[in-house]
Amino acid sequence: MGFVRGGFVLFILLCSFEMSIGSGKTRHFKWDVEYMFWSPDCKENVVMGINGEFPGPTIRAKAGDTISVVVSNKLHTEGVVIHWHGIRQMGTPWADGTASISQCAINPGETFDYRFVVDKPGTYFYHGHFGMQRSAGLYGSLIVDVADGDQREPFHYDGEFNMLLSDWWHQSVHHQEVGLSSKPFRWIGEPQTLLINGRGQFNCSLAAHFSNTSSPNQCNLRGTEQCAPQILRVLPNKTYRLRIASTTALASLNLAVGGHKMVVVEADGNYVQPFQVEDIDIYSGESYSVLIRTNQEASKNYWILIGVRGRRPQTPQALTLLNYAPTSASKIPLSPPPITPTWNDYDHSKSFSNKILALMGSRKPPRNHDRRIILLNTQNLIDGFIKWSINNISLHLPSTPYLGSIKYSLKTAFDNKSPPENFATDYDVMKPPVNPNTTTGNGVYMLPLNTTVDVILQNANALAANVSEIHPWHLHGHDFWVLGYGEGKFTKEDEKKFNLKNPPLRNTAVIFPYGWTALRFVTDNPGVWAFHCHIEPHLHMGMGVIFAEGVQHVNGIPNQALACGLTGNRFMKTTQN
Amino acid sequence: MGFVRGGFVLFILLCSFEMSIGSGKTRHFKWDVEYMFWSPDCKENVVMGINGEFPGPTIRAKAGDTISVVVSNKLHTEGVVIHWHGIRQMGTPWADGTASISQCAINPGETFDYRFVVDKPGTYFYHGHFGMQRSAGLYGSLIVDVADGDQREPFHYDGEFNMLLSDWWHQSVHHQEVGLSSKPFRWIGEPQTLLINGRGQFNCSLAAHFSNTSSPNQCNLRGTEQCAPQILRVLPNKTYRLRIASTTALASLNLAVGGHKMVVVEADGNYVQPFQVEDIDIYSGESYSVLIRTNQEASKNYWILIGVRGRRPQTPQALTLLNYAPTSASKIPLSPPPITPTWNDYDHSKSFSNKILALMGSRKPPRNHDRRIILLNTQNLIDGFIKWSINNISLHLPSTPYLGSIKYSLKTAFDNKSPPENFATDYDVMKPPVNPNTTTGNGVYMLPLNTTVDVILQNANALAANVSEIHPWHLHGHDFWVLGYGEGKFTKEDEKKFNLKNPPLRNTAVIFPYGWTALRFVTDNPGVWAFHCHIEPHLHMGMGVIFAEGVQHVNGIPNQALACGLTGNRFMKTTQN
Repeated sequence: MGFVRGGFVLFILLCSFEMSIGSGKTRHFKWDVEYMFWSPDCKENVVMGINGEFPGPTIRAKAGDTISVVVSNKLHTEGVVIHWHGIRQMGTPWADGTASISQCAINPGETFDYRFVVDKPGTYFYHGHFGMQRSAGLYGSLIVDVADGDQREPFHYDGEFNMLLSDWWHQSVHHQEVGLSSKPFRWIGEPQTLLINGRGQFNCSLAAHFSNTSSPNQCNLRGTEQCAPQILRVLPNKTYRLRIASTTALASLNLAVGGHKMVVVEADGNYVQPFQVEDIDIYSGESYSVLIRTNQEASKNYWILIGVRGRRPQTPQALTLLNYAPTSASKIPLSPPPITPTWNDYDHSKSFSNKILALMGSRKPPRNHDRRIILLNTQNLIDGFIKWSINNISLHLPSTPYLGSIKYSLKTAFDNKSPPENFATDYDVMKPPVNPNTTTGNGVYMLPLNTTVDVILQNANALAANVSEIHPWHLHGHDFWVLGYGEGKFTKEDEKKFNLKNPPLRNTAVIFPYGWTALRFVTDNPGVWAFHCHIEPHLHMGMGVIFAEGVQHVNGIPNQALACGLTGNRFMKTTQN
Repeated sequence: MGFVRGGFVLFILLCSFEMSIGSGKTRHFKWDVEYMFWSPDCKENVVMGINGEFPGPTIRAKAGDTISVVVSNKLHTEGVVIHWHGIRQMGTPWADGTASISQCAINPGETFDYRFVVDKPGTYFYHGHFGMQRSAGLYGSLIVDVADGDQREPFHYDGEFNMLLSDWWHQSVHHQEVGLSSKPFRWIGEPQTLLINGRGQFNCSLAAHFSNTSSPNQCNLRGTEQCAPQILRVLPNKTYRLRIASTTALASLNLAVGGHKMVVVEADGNYVQPFQVEDIDIYSGESYSVLIRTNQEASKNYWILIGVRGRRPQTPQALTLLNYAPTSASKIPLSPPPITPTWNDYDHSKSFSNKILALMGSRKPPRNHDRRIILLNTQNLIDGFIKWSINNISLHLPSTPYLGSIKYSLKTAFDNKSPPENFATDYDVMKPPVNPNTTTGNGVYMLPLNTTVDVILQNANALAANVSEIHPWHLHGHDFWVLGYGEGKFTKEDEKKFNLKNPPLRNTAVIFPYGWTALRFVTDNPGVWAFHCHIEPHLHMGMGVIFAEGVQHVNGIPNQALACGLTGNRFMKTTQN
């Protein structure tokens, strides 16, 4: 009896140990990643799916929960990793899911247990972070609700919908990758189709009959097709939360709901001071929650649409319907979908970005920075190959994950020279580079723990004259405060305009053409963290940097995460040799 | 001075150590494997190339040389291995280049040094052995000449040409793989084009003007195109050696040289008793040397052609020219190319196979066998997925290479139950399986060292009635004697017909529809050796078995070859844990 009681106590202890990582429960998932035939836009293609689904399954958890996703790589020859976008991985940097940075890619036939705490409610997503596997379709939603017993969200809603936005190409990512690495360079071009929750229409449009031209055809979907739009069915006079995240490979998007205003309440898992807009701009890597009030005529349905921004659109809007119950879901609105703002109306974009401010009472940034790193974004050439460079270094990831090579001081694993903290003062950001040549590199910005770092992202002219593009930069392991956006070359004077009062916390921030964006974060999370343009082909072409902070404090890296490259060679001890 | 002299002696010792693996010199190669745009058949596609070439570079060495190929994996997300087809890897089983069997696949960004001795002159080739990377174009030639000072070849020739044969699909292998693993099953279909040294014509034919139909068009090639045929330029009244190897993914081929007879002198790196034929059948995985005498009218050119055998052809013949100097290479022959024997004229095929006998004085097989393994080849279903099975087990390779898991007795790495040595006596090989269900497995035939093993490959009816296909079986690590071919189900009586007098040594042997093939080999090479159908999609569908022999005697496996799966986990010793 005493033994049984003792066993019971032990059981409790083990459970609480299990639970001690997060304050909530552990949620277990088993995922098989594989290629499959799928028709995201009514045209069949090969798509990277999870457990036979595209997009992958939605993870739903509560703040404080521990997530355990045992990922089995069922691909035949490709490695795979999954990045949990927006999750900071406090204490679990090896679970960040970045190949060559936080871990070795999971080999075909092997499994890896991603185990991490979701500590903050919000709208997140996950995606592949190896080669261009995100573009191949490896993504899904991750929604974190407030913990039981915690205070409720600072806004009310009656129901919610999840909208994961992406873009889709008919050409395989393998083909795309070869083009990007070829001389002459072959750009991937604009996407064939925009997808909402993995569904779009390439062969037809829901709104074709409003068009003056004969193409595309009016959709004749039964609703059961893989490409049939998910219709948002609502009750009149209610408030709905739309959780919107963009995992596009390339496209900057604008989303609107015909006849309905939107109140933005969350950005990248952080509450913002609510503000009302007609439409939102959303860049790859960002997420928003918006509230809509179903206060329009209930006998009608309304368009929900996304369209391309920031690049001359060659991709039709994606459409679905806001369907008021009990109106039939097949009732098409009487007027055409709203028109997406002109692609190069950057004032519209900037106006939206500048409205995003932290909810009153949010954590404020430190007043001063300990270090400022200025990162010039340029398009360059290496031996005729087109690259993106940051302070004239185009990132080429090493084969040994940084987390292991830095932890174990394997000095030959990457460039030991620290990359530049600034760029030449006489560089003219308004013109193509005078000397377009650049070099590849994989050096690391080593950041001491518990310091305040400012990053100024400086945009510039690309290789061609009068071209400067939008780049959404995403930081792993952190949220940062967005202190401000500006035009032209950043100067010391611009610092005075920094918003230190209520800057929003984000994990992704855009740089506008020819502009700069100022970010601040505190190095409070030991690990190695990628910071990169979230446009996947741009990252593939070198547009990123690596931050390492307090790696000596990282303990518990799973062996499997380091069983490749130099760490693999160094720590493999067989008895034979 | 004494120190210097001592250093010199040490240097000599080190060199001789270096050389001691083989008796010849060490030949060093550095290869980058990557995808690239290429037009093997005049239609651009993505091809797996080596150092920017397709097919990969030809290796030329002398018997006794050590080959060192440092393979760098420049693919973005795929692992890679290279198998040296026909090289027995005596003492270097980790260099056999079979993923999951002899080594972990080389990770993207990493390199692996394949170092092995080529101990026997002959016509060989190399190719990818992971997923379907061979079909993606990862192959090239490996020619071993007689060693300096060794006796000359048992035949004379004035010049030689190398012809590596393959087949080509326009659909990517990634797409093909998904189809093969899908329900409903999608077969890859017949190849679009046959290639000679990586060159074929999809859009045109050299002999189109002989055709009654309008398609294809007459080729209008300048000769500099990637798809332009390599023309064999010869002098009159000479003897030429054609080294012919087939690395097709699927197609069985027939090769002929218009107006010229061929004398077969070598098969799979072994001399055969010379015999004369009008054409040769060649199956995937095989190689031949044939001699031709340029004794025809020198003012003409002559067709060299390959066509499909064993499957209803939907692929045009591949053509090139035998061009007699000084006749212009652009002079097309006056008559159409010879017609390839009817695809299902198996008597023709068998007649050719039965002519292949060992050159007099060749090594003879042991008179008796110690063990006989009978392998029934069937097409089956698993949960509706189509598979190939051997004794009702469809091979599914484990994630840990057998060479490591057997050496270190990691019992959970694969099925420990030995696979069956025979099949049910009442199985009717002439009919579709009564119960088509099968199971996947990865058990191993454990073979004690220095025993004589007979393998009887037993063909059968596939899933559909009246269908039985040709399968060329290839053994790694060994040559085997082909003791005979027979019809129907093998019986004890058939043993009496075995050729023990002059059976040819091969590494690949075909089973004909509804027939059996008897092989014998001696387990004299410690290692783990795949034995499988060389049709790549068939292997992908499970058509293979694994032999392990004397693995306890294997020493010196490079750590990198085992840095994955359970061996990776077991031998990774980081200081942190």
